[in-house]
Amino acid sequence: MLSLLSLRARIEAGTLTPAQAIVRTRDAIAEHEPSVRAFVATDATPQVSDTGPLAGIAVGIKDIIDTAHLPTQMGSSIYAGWQPRADAPIVARLKRLGAVPLAKTTTTAFAFVDPTETRNPRAPGRTPGGSSAGSAAAVAAGMLPLALGTQTGGSVIRPAAFCGVVGVKPSFRLLPTVGVKCFSWTLDTLGLFAASAADAAHALALIAGRPEIDGTGPIPRIGLLVPEYCEAAEPDALQALDRARVMAEAAGGDIRDFALPDEFRHAFDAHATIQDFESAQALAWEYETHRDSLPPLLRGHLDTARTIEAATYDAARRVAHHARRSLRDILRDSDLDILLTVSAPGRAPEGYASTGDSRFNRLWTLMGVPCVTIPVPGEGAPLGVQIIARFGDDARALSAAKFLEKAFAKQS
Amino acid sequence: MLSLLSLRARIEAGTLTPAQAIVRTRDAIAEHEPSVRAFVATDATPQVSDTGPLAGIAVGIKDIIDTAHLPTQMGSSIYAGWQPRADAPIVARLKRLGAVPLAKTTTTAFAFVDPTETRNPRAPGRTPGGSSAGSAAAVAAGMLPLALGTQTGGSVIRPAAFCGVVGVKPSFRLLPTVGVKCFSWTLDTLGLFAASAADAAHALALIAGRPEIDGTGPIPRIGLLVPEYCEAAEPDALQALDRARVMAEAAGGDIRDFALPDEFRHAFDAHATIQDFESAQALAWEYETHRDSLPPLLRGHLDTARTIEAATYDAARRVAHHARRSLRDILRDSDLDILLTVSAPGRAPEGYASTGDSRFNRLWTLMGVPCVTIPVPGEGAPLGVQIIARFGDDARALSAAKFLEKAFAKQS
Repeated sequence: MLSLLSLRARIEAGTLTPAQAIVRTRDAIAEHEPSVRAFVATDATPQVSDTGPLAGIAVGIKDIIDTAHLPTQMGSSIYAGWQPRADAPIVARLKRLGAVPLAKTTTTAFAFVDPTETRNPRAPGRTPGGSSAGSAAAVAAGMLPLALGTQTGGSVIRPAAFCGVVGVKPSFRLLPTVGVKCFSWTLDTLGLFAASAADAAHALALIAGRPEIDGTGPIPRIGLLVPEYCEAAEPDALQALDRARVMAEAAGGDIRDFALPDEFRHAFDAHATIQDFESAQALAWEYETHRDSLPPLLRGHLDTARTIEAATYDAARRVAHHARRSLRDILRDSDLDILLTVSAPGRAPEGYASTGDSRFNRLWTLMGVPCVTIPVPGEGAPLGVQIIARFGDDARALSAAKFLEKAFAKQS
Repeated sequence: MLSLLSLRARIEAGTLTPAQAIVRTRDAIAEHEPSVRAFVATDATPQVSDTGPLAGIAVGIKDIIDTAHLPTQMGSSIYAGWQPRADAPIVARLKRLGAVPLAKTTTTAFAFVDPTETRNPRAPGRTPGGSSAGSAAAVAAGMLPLALGTQTGGSVIRPAAFCGVVGVKPSFRLLPTVGVKCFSWTLDTLGLFAASAADAAHALALIAGRPEIDGTGPIPRIGLLVPEYCEAAEPDALQALDRARVMAEAAGGDIRDFALPDEFRHAFDAHATIQDFESAQALAWEYETHRDSLPPLLRGHLDTARTIEAATYDAARRVAHHARRSLRDILRDSDLDILLTVSAPGRAPEGYASTGDSRFNRLWTLMGVPCVTIPVPGEGAPLGVQIIARFGDDARALSAAKFLEKAFAKQS
């Protein structure tokens, strides 16, 4: 994979120019894209800045994020050739840091669950996950050092885990979702894909303008969470979590078992109600005027979603509000720095009919707390573990991810 | 003015068709628009639905709200001729209810404070206010029975008060801001302008899909708030508030004095920090690529806004979060149904150099609570009083507004 920090180190040492770094990225794309199919549009004549802390870094932009220089097609024929006027603020920010928004990456239609054409470079014959399929696959294939995704259910953490890369879903609204096609305004969260936790922390600190996110924390106190608020994970995923525990303990990590109260089963259910009610509104124009052009899973979803009553939605919002406060209190009283749990139910499912299951991500998206997935070393298709921190404590989530990444590298 | 309920009553009685109602509206526009200048685009061949509870109702759409059939120009040359692909969900919803989104109304550039060309039909020589200038003026001039605006500081309540119409800023996110140009994602709130509180309640209940908003509540228990958290209002505004108190008491209203704790001075200050920090991000592309095309007040604002540190913003968000909880607890413990206060510092300022001052609106926008302004009968340029209810209690805000509207009509 292409390491953002390695590229930047060479650029800062003067052994690589930003322009050369972009050429190298484009060469990697030319080599791997025919088999991976991660991109829907690429800038043939990118403007490469010589300055800025991300100069020379090519970034993939999920194709529901507005770009002024490339079409934004939402993974849907309804937006075929659609050219926004403005860059989304996240894209303007990347440019300001010197990065090059080089390509638009595939997304499931409107970031729901109808699969894309993208292949998983690390697990032949298996889905790359979704909805941020192209961003995860592009980083996994070594075509890009950094890519943007969004998560409403599990659309960053799940494809990152399936493709064996690092994925970060920051605290809700740490990064602005302005100019990003909305599915659910209470849930939609911008996130990053990178080759390592250190890369991701460096990029997120710069993009968010919060240097503390790239800091080094103390050895984290970890709560090991085997989720019981929904259907259990597969043995593969639970074994990876246990390997992660053993390696973290060997590196000096303080690990205790942690369980969520039953209240969080209701919060888990509330996610679907909130997402579905809001998606029916967010995509009202598309549904009312282009229903037949929607892909089948999304069309069926909206057929049902639009029947949810406002009172049901309001009740779900109250459940979510209460659960957010409970989680905050529980974590504060626990003296834990992070929770460690599975990133997905198992390895990427075989075939391309499904993008996999987001059930171990939805609750955390609803809670708005920062989540990071990092790969767990092992044979076969990738598996990840998920680090969860308190709302607003993205710095601790990332420093814990870096600690675990180092621990895994030493022990494996 | 054009009353939505009167038009609907005639349509339901069969004495007016929806198409005739739209013709009547268009005639009113032809008569008044040359002097008011409330519109930037009008649909010359509107599709008029024969069915739906808002059939025959022409609606003005503030020109930062996306429409698939009319350009959306943000009050700025940067978006001259810009044609969005989709309707914002709020526009799709209006169409689904049978309403006709007939025209785009003037907005200050990106809904900030650089004045528009719109004139105040009820106060010659005075600003109509802003940023939703065209929507307020169009309803005031009797050109439309309903119009959409947005409020980040005081952009619905202030122009409604200045133009002598009813304005509603509902609870935060009661109406989806998807497809609405963002200034501050924590604050931007969709609202309505109408000829009466009864009209506004009827429309909001339908648009939000919450029939209880059009209900009749008991006689409200009212807390009279003479604001002390910022610079005092002018004598005219305070006298109007006192007249409102007297008329409400004569109608049987239970009115007590109410004061906010000092904490809310900090919350008042937090509004500016949050708005400014977010606006610098939301308008990053416009600032980075078209700074010279921005109008002078917005350009100067963004020059300063972009220097705010993330830590300052985070501190302001914590202040706001705490104040929202305090307000909830205070209102719960008070046994009050609503607060009654001034809508603006005074009458619309003379001249067109300023859109007026939002200082009696910003705190409530930050609190996310429903606000309604209704005109207080009297001589000269219009004055309004503002009704404030608890978060999510839009029904009580509107039923209290209807009570006061009746009380004012009886007593004046």
